[in-house]
Amino acid sequence: MGREAPIGVFDSGVGGLTVAREIMRQIPNERIVYFGDTARVPYGSKSRETIIKYSRQIIRFLLTENVKAIVIACNTASAFAIDVMQNEFDLPIVGVVKPGARVAAETTKNGKVGLIGTEGTIRSGVYAAFIKSFRPDVEVIGKPCPLFVPLVEEGMLHDTITDQVAERYLGTLKERKIDTLIMGCTHYPLLRSTIGRIIGEQVRLVNPAYETAQELKRVLDREHIANVQEVDSPSSMYRFYVSDAADKFKAFANSILPFDIAMTQQISIEQY
Amino acid sequence: MGREAPIGVFDSGVGGLTVAREIMRQIPNERIVYFGDTARVPYGSKSRETIIKYSRQIIRFLLTENVKAIVIACNTASAFAIDVMQNEFDLPIVGVVKPGARVAAETTKNGKVGLIGTEGTIRSGVYAAFIKSFRPDVEVIGKPCPLFVPLVEEGMLHDTITDQVAERYLGTLKERKIDTLIMGCTHYPLLRSTIGRIIGEQVRLVNPAYETAQELKRVLDREHIANVQEVDSPSSMYRFYVSDAADKFKAFANSILPFDIAMTQQISIEQY
Repeated sequence: MGREAPIGVFDSGVGGLTVAREIMRQIPNERIVYFGDTARVPYGSKSRETIIKYSRQIIRFLLTENVKAIVIACNTASAFAIDVMQNEFDLPIVGVVKPGARVAAETTKNGKVGLIGTEGTIRSGVYAAFIKSFRPDVEVIGKPCPLFVPLVEEGMLHDTITDQVAERYLGTLKERKIDTLIMGCTHYPLLRSTIGRIIGEQVRLVNPAYETAQELKRVLDREHIANVQEVDSPSSMYRFYVSDAADKFKAFANSILPFDIAMTQQISIEQY
Repeated sequence: MGREAPIGVFDSGVGGLTVAREIMRQIPNERIVYFGDTARVPYGSKSRETIIKYSRQIIRFLLTENVKAIVIACNTASAFAIDVMQNEFDLPIVGVVKPGARVAAETTKNGKVGLIGTEGTIRSGVYAAFIKSFRPDVEVIGKPCPLFVPLVEEGMLHDTITDQVAERYLGTLKERKIDTLIMGCTHYPLLRSTIGRIIGEQVRLVNPAYETAQELKRVLDREHIANVQEVDSPSSMYRFYVSDAADKFKAFANSILPFDIAMTQQISIEQY
């Protein structure tokens, strides 16, 4: 496996593109193979066993693309499956939960950290466990926000309805006087301005996508597998695969990424 | 296959329980085997090919339960897959689209029928095609309402946010002066009071779940396979299967059905 091999990045759908975007920004000379499990999205309401099965199939597929490292760009899959995957596969696997948790633990002054995400992510307790492993005195106050993803996918990023939903969801976190808020779902950074305005400027927002790209950079350096070659154009450096409806994925991707995706390929993920 | 054999009813998740409930009400002496594809929900945004593959797997599973007829209690699956399934399998298959379409065509006076549902259902054009086959002069005005399902699943059936979302979605249908509105997604009848209040009492609401139970009754009579035996208690007459997270399904089912479900069994649907 050479240093020029790509990074495998996967998510339940389009949300993980916010993580891929951060990797492209921070480590611009790494190739990426992205897989979005659009046939089985969303993961947030599914069981641990199912998420582990899906993650295993996806990593097996990514290995056929000769990836040198894996980024689990889905909070639910990182929460439920990363330990099992790290045991089963023999390459570096970075999830979005641990980097976000560490920064939150380092950031909070009053020891009250809010966490918003899918039901699965909150219920798993994994963010809280990691945060407490860094700083046992921190209290983590979780709040599932199931309507945020469909609102983002409806394009309602700046909308009075989205404001009201956010006020409803974030109200209890404000009352509890958190000073740090983890956006624990890959779609949420797209609502950053709404979330920031409603939770208030005294609360520091943690974007696990940003921290994950930082962590990946450290891992590639530590393992001596960072690419040191000249880079090409985006169209040849980044490949995109989905399990369903490639056209819809492409439209959403082109609205998030700083360049237009040339091609998205649909594969049958259940075969892996 | 005896007259006492059960009816197989399936949906992408919990929504089809509104159809199962209508069958229980209108044909109380029929046994039901219900399958909710909770591991792969939602179907609304997925492609035709994927929906056909999923429907085929589910019908294969239901046949192992010796069902005498199938009800596709999912609008998206009815829209995309019913023709192919009726060709492939040798038992009566009833979908939710055709019965709803026929009643809408019979009901409208001004020839303007509104249709709300998932993107997949609207995009398929199947409701419009059936309605025009009954009455070619009818104009069908479709409006996808992707936020309705997550709002129902959040339990926000009576909520000012849901009112505003409904006003947004139904606004154009009101302007177009429809006199009939098809609730073309199995979750929507749970929002019936909100939808009815906002669209106005001059608009007749069509609930395909109700019409489907009527159609099933006619099919069972015509094929001479209606059950004529004495009936048992609900717990022995109705069986529930899901592809994921059986506990969550049970909680939602118990809030919709007039009795408590004793047991829900999880199966691995990809094996069929």
